[in-house]
Order: sequence, then C-alpha cells, then structure tokens
Amino acid sequence: MPRQTQIGLMSHEELVSEHESQTANYATLKTEKLTLDLTRGKPSSEQLDLSSSLLSLPGDGDFRDGSGTDCRNYGGLNGLPELRAIFGDLLGIPVERLVAGNNASLEIMHDIIAFAMLYGTPDSPRRWVGDEPIKWLCPAPGYDRHFAITEALGIEMITIPMRHDGPDVHAIAALLANDPQIKGLWAVPNYSNPTGVVYSEEIVRELVSLPAAAPDFRLFWDNAYAVHPLTDTAAPVIDVLGLAEAAGNPNRPLVFASTSKITFAGAGVSFFGASQANVDWYLSHAAKKSIGPDKVNQLRHLRFFSDAEGVREHMQKHRALLEPKFALVRRILEDRLGASKVASWTEPKGGYFISLDVLDGTAARVIALAKDAGIALTAAGSAFPYGKDPEDKNIRIAPSFPQLPELEKAMEGLATCVLLAATEKLL
Amino acid sequence: MPRQTQIGLMSHEELVSEHESQTANYATLKTEKLTLDLTRGKPSSEQLDLSSSLLSLPGDGDFRDGSGTDCRNYGGLNGLPELRAIFGDLLGIPVERLVAGNNASLEIMHDIIAFAMLYGTPDSPRRWVGDEPIKWLCPAPGYDRHFAITEALGIEMITIPMRHDGPDVHAIAALLANDPQIKGLWAVPNYSNPTGVVYSEEIVRELVSLPAAAPDFRLFWDNAYAVHPLTDTAAPVIDVLGLAEAAGNPNRPLVFASTSKITFAGAGVSFFGASQANVDWYLSHAAKKSIGPDKVNQLRHLRFFSDAEGVREHMQKHRALLEPKFALVRRILEDRLGASKVASWTEPKGGYFISLDVLDGTAARVIALAKDAGIALTAAGSAFPYGKDPEDKNIRIAPSFPQLPELEKAMEGLATCVLLAATEKLL
Repeated sequence: MPRQTQIGLMSHEELVSEHESQTANYATLKTEKLTLDLTRGKPSSEQLDLSSSLLSLPGDGDFRDGSGTDCRNYGGLNGLPELRAIFGDLLGIPVERLVAGNNASLEIMHDIIAFAMLYGTPDSPRRWVGDEPIKWLCPAPGYDRHFAITEALGIEMITIPMRHDGPDVHAIAALLANDPQIKGLWAVPNYSNPTGVVYSEEIVRELVSLPAAAPDFRLFWDNAYAVHPLTDTAAPVIDVLGLAEAAGNPNRPLVFASTSKITFAGAGVSFFGASQANVDWYLSHAAKKSIGPDKVNQLRHLRFFSDAEGVREHMQKHRALLEPKFALVRRILEDRLGASKVASWTEPKGGYFISLDVLDGTAARVIALAKDAGIALTAAGSAFPYGKDPEDKNIRIAPSFPQLPELEKAMEGLATCVLLAATEKLL
Repeated sequence: MPRQTQIGLMSHEELVSEHESQTANYATLKTEKLTLDLTRGKPSSEQLDLSSSLLSLPGDGDFRDGSGTDCRNYGGLNGLPELRAIFGDLLGIPVERLVAGNNASLEIMHDIIAFAMLYGTPDSPRRWVGDEPIKWLCPAPGYDRHFAITEALGIEMITIPMRHDGPDVHAIAALLANDPQIKGLWAVPNYSNPTGVVYSEEIVRELVSLPAAAPDFRLFWDNAYAVHPLTDTAAPVIDVLGLAEAAGNPNRPLVFASTSKITFAGAGVSFFGASQANVDWYLSHAAKKSIGPDKVNQLRHLRFFSDAEGVREHMQKHRALLEPKFALVRRILEDRLGASKVASWTEPKGGYFISLDVLDGTAARVIALAKDAGIALTAAGSAFPYGKDPEDKNIRIAPSFPQLPELEKAMEGLATCVLLAATEKLL
C-alpha cells in the first residue's frame, strides 16, 4: 500500500482521514501479536553458520603457530603474529603495532580510557582523574556503547553533528584548539554506526592534523566495519596512523577492529593498532591484567582464514545474506514513507545499520507504538550522548538478525507507527 | 652426593674446604651450559595434552547450551549457566552468584580494583581515587602478579607474615580495626602460591569476622588451586561466602577461580563469585566493557567436563603428572641440603609451587649464580610486595613445566648454588 500523498501538505480533513486510516492500520497490527526485534546489530544464525568450522578448529593435535608457540599455554600478550599479520594487511597496520586480544574490542577501548584515567597516556602530564572534567567529542548519531563507556566514567560528552562524509570538522576544530579538557573523539570511520557514513580522506586528514589544546587528545578509531561492504566497491581503509604520523601527531589515533561481525559475534578476536609508543603503553598496563589473550581462539581464526584474501572472500558470503535485508528495508521505507515526506533514511553501502529520521518530536512515540505492537526497537535517543536525541527524530534499524519474512513484518509495522505518530503530531 | 654436615657448625677450615668444593661443583655446572626454567607455574605439554579434545570441541553443529542460547552470538554477560553450575558445585557457590568469564581470573581481579578506584564499591562512601593512600594487606610470601596489580595502582602494600595455616590474623586484626584506608587483602586460600599453605577454617572465620575500619574492605579470595590436590585427601573448599554472610559481612569476600591449571593455561575460563550485591555491581560495570564473555569456549569446557565429577577425575590425571615432579624436588632438596641446615622448604599437598628458604641474605646471590649457570628462577623477592624480600631468603620453585630429567638437572644445579652462596656468606 504505497503512500502517494505528502502528509505535511494535507488539509486538516485529509489529515484527520489519514490519522483514522493509520489508527486502523495500527489496530490491525496489534492483533498480529508480533514479537520482533530490530534492536541490536547481531549477526543472524545463517551468518554465524558461515563460520561453523570454527566449532571444531584448530583440531586435535594442532596447537602450535608458525613460530612454534604452544598456543594452549600462558603468554604472548600481544597475540599471534600470523593472525595479526592478516588483519594488519586488511587494516594497513604494521604487525608490530597491532595487538590481537580476546573477544571484544569494546573491552580494549574501555581499558584504554580506564588506564588513561588511572595512569595517564604517554602524552599526559598526569592521570586524568583529579583533572576533571574530562570532555569527549561525540559525533552523533553514533554508537550507543561508545557513549555508555564515556558516560559511565563521568566524561562530559559534546555532541558533534554528523555530515555525509564524517563529523563536522569545523565544529571540532573550534572546540579542540581551545579546550585542553577534550581528550577524545569517538569515530566509526567506515560504514558508521548507525548512519553508514564513510569518513572521507579529507575529513580524516583534518582529524589527525587539527591543533589540539590537549597534548593527549586521542581519536578512538573503531573500524568495526572495515571489511563489511554491501556493494562491489568496498570503502578504502584509510591509513589513519600513517596520516597522523605525517601530520606530526603519531600518537593521536587508536585503531580498533574485531571479528565480531566476521566470525562469531561473541567468540571472535579483537584488534588494537596504534603508534609504537601507544602500543607499548597499552601492553605495559594490560600485562598487569592478564598473562595473555586466548591464543587457541586466535589459532582457530588463523586456520579458518589462512590469509587476508580469505577474510575478504568470507565477507562476500555475509554480504550475500545481508544485502537482501537492507534492500527489503529500503523498499518498504520507500513504498510506505517515500511520498509522505515525514521520514528520511540512510542508504548505507556497508555495515550493519540504517538510520531512520522520522518527523521531529515523534521518534519516542514511534518506538513506544512499535513496542506495544510487539516490535522492539533500540530506545529513543540511544544513538546520542546521554540517550538524548535533541530533535527526537532518530531511530536505528538493525536488519541483520531477523529472517526476511519477520523483517518485512517488522518494517511494515514500523512504517505504520511512523505514519500514525506523524499524523498525531500534525493534528 | 648427599650432604651430611651442618654448615653452620663447621670450623673455618671445614667451611673453606666446603666453599672450595662447591666452587668446583659450580664450575662443573657452568660447563654443562644448561638452559632450564623454573620461573613460572606453567602446566607442562603433557598436562595440556590431557585436554586435547578441547581443540576440536564443541564440534560442528554444536553451539547451543541447555537453555537454547546460541553461544556464537552476543550476550550472556554472566556466562553459561550449566558451566557455572559445575564450578558452583566445586566452589560451593550458588550459580546465580557465580559469573563465568574469559581466560584470565586475574583480569577480573584487576577490573574489580579498577572499578573500585573509579566508581567505589557498593559499600564505599565514594570512589577510591582522590581518597588515597589506599592500603592493602599482603600475606607474604605470596603471588607476584597479585602484588603487581596493587603496586601499579599506587596502592600501599603492607606485608603480613604467612603462618602454616594462613596469614597472621593477629597482625591483621590490629591493622584492620584502626585503619580505614585498608581496603583489601590478597589471599590464595588453598595451596597458596608459593608456600602451599592451606588456610584453616579458624583463620577463614577470623578473616570474614574481624572488625574493619573500612566498610568496603574486601578479601580477594583467589582460589586458583581449589581442585588441585597432590594427595588423596583434597583440602576442603571452605564456604567463605557463607561464613562471611553469617558473620554479618556478606560483601567482604570476592572469590576467584579459573580453569587455567585445569585445561589450557591461556585458553580457559575464569570465575568470579560473591554476594549478589557485589555480583550485580561487578556486572553493571563489566556491561560497559563487553557484551559478554566467549560463550563458545564455555560450551567447549561444558562438553569437556560434563559435571563436577568430570573436573575432579580430570584433576587426578594432572596429579599423576605433577606428583613425581614434586617428589623429585623434595628428594633433591633433602639429599643435597637436608643435613646442611642452610635451607628449609615447604612440602605442599597441592598447587603449583615449592617455597625454598635459603640462608638469610643469600637468595639474590643464589638466583644470580643459577642464572649464570643457565637456570632461570623467579627474580629474588618476587613473592613479596614491591619485590623486596626483607630477609633475602625466599626462592619460589615451579616444578610443573620442565620434564623430569631437566627438573633434576635444574634442582641439582640450584642446590649447588644454595651451598656455594651459603659458604660465601659464612666465610
């Protein structure tokens, strides 16, 4: 049932009629008693099945890496060299500056901030605690779990508008040059969560070059979707470390990645790359926490991929499963909401999310309506610092986990909620 | 070449002769150009082989636990219930108060102290940073990696003498009652590292009951060797949480354990058990770091053990490999050093270490001599806070990793070094 009328141009009578129509649609939706979930960017079972052989790897008797290390025993704080070489290749990071860890890159991000709070970075005059408020630049919409870390640590988050090619560097420049309390910026450079934005090389050059009042300002460069294109042409992995070094700020970027959306979301391998000074600093503190990461799981991944090309080929299988889901979401949004002009959405070329903007002031209502109809969406405002969307318009759609028929039902239901909330608002 | 003379009772001439004899022995030792390592409590390859089947577990198609959770995906912050039930059984901790984590319980200990520094515990009036100095009770000889965590965080460590049945509770009582800055105590209650001491129930009752000036005083109860006996009768796992609750201090103990010395040292599962308030507090902060531990590895361990009895049976296989090594060390120490009376050592009934006390003021010299002869020993003083053994007499022997012939050579060499250093000192 494609909508052909622009709701904002309707007469009062037309709007009343539209509202009645959507109210009826919503009543029908509720009778379906759905239990659908579009909340989190989780891989589907079919995606996880692509890595099934990990369940029996490395295999009986296979426990030594190429250097002869017994992966079962203690040690090797920076991870298996051969696996680091594969991801160093994909991320453009020299193997000696890339660490392979346990199953969550989020953990390394958290720990690095905690270490900075407790000890200071290599460029800090002192530890960050006692020197508060610490402030953080948060391009938004962004990743809720990033914001949750800085919020928990009492770090003051400053929202930076997100543009089509990355965050607003003019806004960043003015703040960064003058406020020595600004110590970090959250970034997802490729297929950003949730907008799908790919940072342009120009923006990246600015971010590594801009004068910063704080000598220990850091870019938390979460390249979670570095190898996750949904089109034939993958966005390039920009050499942020090289550019930063060339700009005289070698210690500014901290690069993160993981196999969470490559192999098993909960049982993958995380990566951290940075300047040698940052890597050495991180390892010196990490050494107090652990005798080393799970090297058997790293060996398992090494056997599974063999090389960087193995990772790229594997990602094409993910793409084949994800593309129809993204296409379905786009089609329903276009069919149901295109002409109404009460919503706009991103058309990501990779990653895991579609960012939907509904009529200002209606996102929370849409999400509440959807919830009552059995469709779970990420909480309103969750893509913004402190969970507060200033315009109450953003909704993050995660299409990866549901099957196509469920996704279709959820999106049709969501469209009804968007239209109902819009007519409510305009009446 | 058993020694039959008590060195301390020798005449000057006898001592000179003994010194010459040991100098000759040492010269011979050096010609052997050994490269032997007694430094760390690492399982041997044979011990790791006992868990070989983990290398191909859980097996293709096996990724759901008993509740139907897909272990490959995100989630499940507190770990797989079935695996927690097994270790809850072994540790005497209700499953809901036991968390299963990644491969290093040390990481959980570190994180809990870091969380307390940054946020305070449920019983803290405020976060620990800014309220410094924080102080810590450190029974010694103890575990160097424990002390390394508190040292790194700038926590003031207070050495507590270790007795045959646990730390000196009288010394603890006086400090604890009067100093609100004392926030923690490191403990390895069963087969303590490195002394092998098993805390008596009386000592445990004291530790959970003693009045503490700090409301947020915590026992860091690292039960790393809970199921690691070397004799037929295993030391009981004392219900420290139950005793603490009965004593009105339910939040005082934080219990840690892991499979590091049960399955793979670097690729096992860690556990944390505590009161519900402490567990909830820990998980609330851990949730900021990670979406959950590696549940596939937990499933792998669940399949491997099946139940608590499976763990106990498995540990008997470790015992069969370890017992001859401990017996060999004891025999050589007795044969070479028994009559000399310049050394004493522990005879642990479980765990991973033998603690050797040499003549006061000679441990560093012994370790240096051994190093020059190609025998690596843990650095002098490493079993003490700040790496400072006040009497310079303690040497930690880790017999698990070397093969028996290597262990024999290393111990014979070490005995020569002990005797040489003693005669040097007495001359």
